[in-house]
Amino acid sequence: MDGVSETNRNPIHPTDLTMLGLGAMGSALTAALLDADHSVTVWNRTPGRDTDLVARGAHAAGSVREAVTASPVVVACLLKHDSVHETLDPVIDALRGRTLVNVTTTTPEEARELASWAAAHGVDYLDGAIMAVPAMISSRAGQIFYSGSRAAYDALLPIIDIWATSEFHGEDAGRASLVDLAMLSGMYQLFAGFVHGAAMVGSVGMSACDFAARQAPFLAAMTAELAGFAKVIDGGDYTVPNQQSLDFSDLSHIVRASEGQGVDPAPIAAVQALIDRQVAAGHGSEGFARIYESLRATVSTGQVRR
Amino acid sequence: MDGVSETNRNPIHPTDLTMLGLGAMGSALTAALLDADHSVTVWNRTPGRDTDLVARGAHAAGSVREAVTASPVVVACLLKHDSVHETLDPVIDALRGRTLVNVTTTTPEEARELASWAAAHGVDYLDGAIMAVPAMISSRAGQIFYSGSRAAYDALLPIIDIWATSEFHGEDAGRASLVDLAMLSGMYQLFAGFVHGAAMVGSVGMSACDFAARQAPFLAAMTAELAGFAKVIDGGDYTVPNQQSLDFSDLSHIVRASEGQGVDPAPIAAVQALIDRQVAAGHGSEGFARIYESLRATVSTGQVRR
Ligand SMILES: NC(=O)c1ccc[n+]([C@@H]2O[C@H](COP(=O)([O-])OP(=O)(O)OC[C@H]3O[C@@H](n4cnc5c(N)ncnc54)[C@H](OP(=O)(O)O)[C@@H]3O)[C@@H](O)[C@H]2O)c1
Ligand SMILES: NC(=O)c1ccc[n+]([C@@H]2O[C@H](COP(=O)([O-])OP(=O)(O)OC[C@H]3O[C@@H](n4cnc5c(N)ncnc54)[C@H](OP(=O)(O)O)[C@@H]3O)[C@@H](O)[C@H]2O)c1
Repeated sequence: MDGVSETNRNPIHPTDLTMLGLGAMGSALTAALLDADHSVTVWNRTPGRDTDLVARGAHAAGSVREAVTASPVVVACLLKHDSVHETLDPVIDALRGRTLVNVTTTTPEEARELASWAAAHGVDYLDGAIMAVPAMISSRAGQIFYSGSRAAYDALLPIIDIWATSEFHGEDAGRASLVDLAMLSGMYQLFAGFVHGAAMVGSVGMSACDFAARQAPFLAAMTAELAGFAKVIDGGDYTVPNQQSLDFSDLSHIVRASEGQGVDPAPIAAVQALIDRQVAAGHGSEGFARIYESLRATVSTGQVRR
Repeated sequence: MDGVSETNRNPIHPTDLTMLGLGAMGSALTAALLDADHSVTVWNRTPGRDTDLVARGAHAAGSVREAVTASPVVVACLLKHDSVHETLDPVIDALRGRTLVNVTTTTPEEARELASWAAAHGVDYLDGAIMAVPAMISSRAGQIFYSGSRAAYDALLPIIDIWATSEFHGEDAGRASLVDLAMLSGMYQLFAGFVHGAAMVGSVGMSACDFAARQAPFLAAMTAELAGFAKVIDGGDYTVPNQQSLDFSDLSHIVRASEGQGVDPAPIAAVQALIDRQVAAGHGSEGFARIYESLRATVSTGQVRR
């Protein structure tokens, strides 16, 4: 081991930031900071994942405690909510007075729990939700949503902006995660819709590649419709003119066609169920966006809104 | 009424094509033909919907029989499958030897039924499925899928290409409709996914317009992933490298987050169910595209494939 690496392994070397977790994402975030000439202390549960980053100038910590005490700002990029507690509960005293930026994927409720836990221990908490794959980090193509401590966000913006386009979503720590999960929910429904369509045409021998060549540009074009639905939802009046009605949007022929080809209609039947609920309530002549009311029909108290 | 209109109302005037049904779509298709200098006879169940088209040169028929006998090619653009039988069963003898182009939306099985019925009465049958709204007709932005009689398609291509980009999908009359419904199924799942996400963020006061401004470009970009899923599906090997695994794609945190906000998770829970089925069968480390196997699991004989 050469002299530089020895220096890098000195755990009491003070650095700008500490990164906990050197998986695919934690490593990409660290590399971006090093490229921007920030000093970074790194720690990973399983040893050996820091070799490349240390060669690029990162300081390796021998323990979580050493890692936490090395910097005023600690970033956690671990697998999930539990991993954050497992890693930080034993050293919570060392975290007091520092800022914790948690970019580990959590649910909104888990992020809120971590924010309360951090507050109870004198830790400034900023939650981050990453809308990017590791290869997109510092390419500007990615986005990271933040919520929680506004002061931490403002102070760290020049640094966190290295990773992706940053967006602050408010002091409710759960909000960044909620927006992130809502975005991903749309993505997975798009993906499942495509696979369902591919299964339908696959039943008569059309290849999924042939179908994708038609479906991808069509769906990309159809995203232009979302702004129109959004305007109706925000306006709260589903009777405004020039909308496709729920009656016209009846999908039972698609459900039947899927069944007729031996393809499970479940994902499209779930959409039809949202339509049916509104039609049954007498809103068939109103716009498609009204399925919003089917989705938010039950409020958290268990009451039915309409 | 002036002399020209009188001539136009002569039912025995032979024309190139006859259009049955002058709703929003039938009217747009007719107008496009007239603009391209084709002679067209028109008929609509409810009188009075032909006024504009007659002013533009269309010939009005006083009855379905007159309409059918006026042209070698009869286009039906009616509401649904039943409407085609209601309109044409009484005059099926007059249709013998002619070509019927049916662009009424049907399921694949309904299109196949109409093809057999037409064949039994000596009628050449071409089924069409319109991937366009009326405003897109003859703008080249639309597509129409056809299947059934290859001879009719080839002979009519110069005319039907006036409406939209034409694509022939084979002699199985149900196939154009199947591809169309598969495309629309993907579209409605995209729409529902967006509305579901909007309901999730709406629960903390974020506007649907704010969400759409983020979701629309994100989903448009994500359509680039479909070709990759398609390649894996066609290859039939869900273990090829560089895929996002089903284990990684676990959506239970999205389902929980939706429930936590009081938003019905049904549409995303339907996707999670497809994932769960494959994970339970021991395929968690394989790629996301494997949900294809959940969808096509039941074949029409009722057997379970895997
Ligand atoms: N990769 C992406 O595309 C992406 C995109 C957006 C968000 N994210 C989020 O970023 C976070 C990290 O993702 P990743 O892609 O880097 O995952 P990864 O490559 O699987 O790495 C997981 C990391 O978490 C650590 N870890 C797991 N359980 C732990 C525990 N109980 N205590 C301490 N450390 C633990 C692992 O350490 P070991 O090496 O010891 O196992 C490893 O460093 C996740 O929450 C993920 O959802 C990832
Ligand atoms: N509009 C679109 O964006 C669009 C896109 C793709 C496909 N399509 C398909 O195109 C077809 C026509 O759609 P459209 O938009 O023109 O619908 P529309 O405006 O509602 O018109 C429906 C037409 O069908 C006729 N009709 C209904 N029931 C009938 C019956 N039992 N016998 C005879 N005629 C009957 C109506 O005649 P009356 O005037 O007498 O009621 C009217 O001409 C539908 O299958 C639709 O799914 C439409």
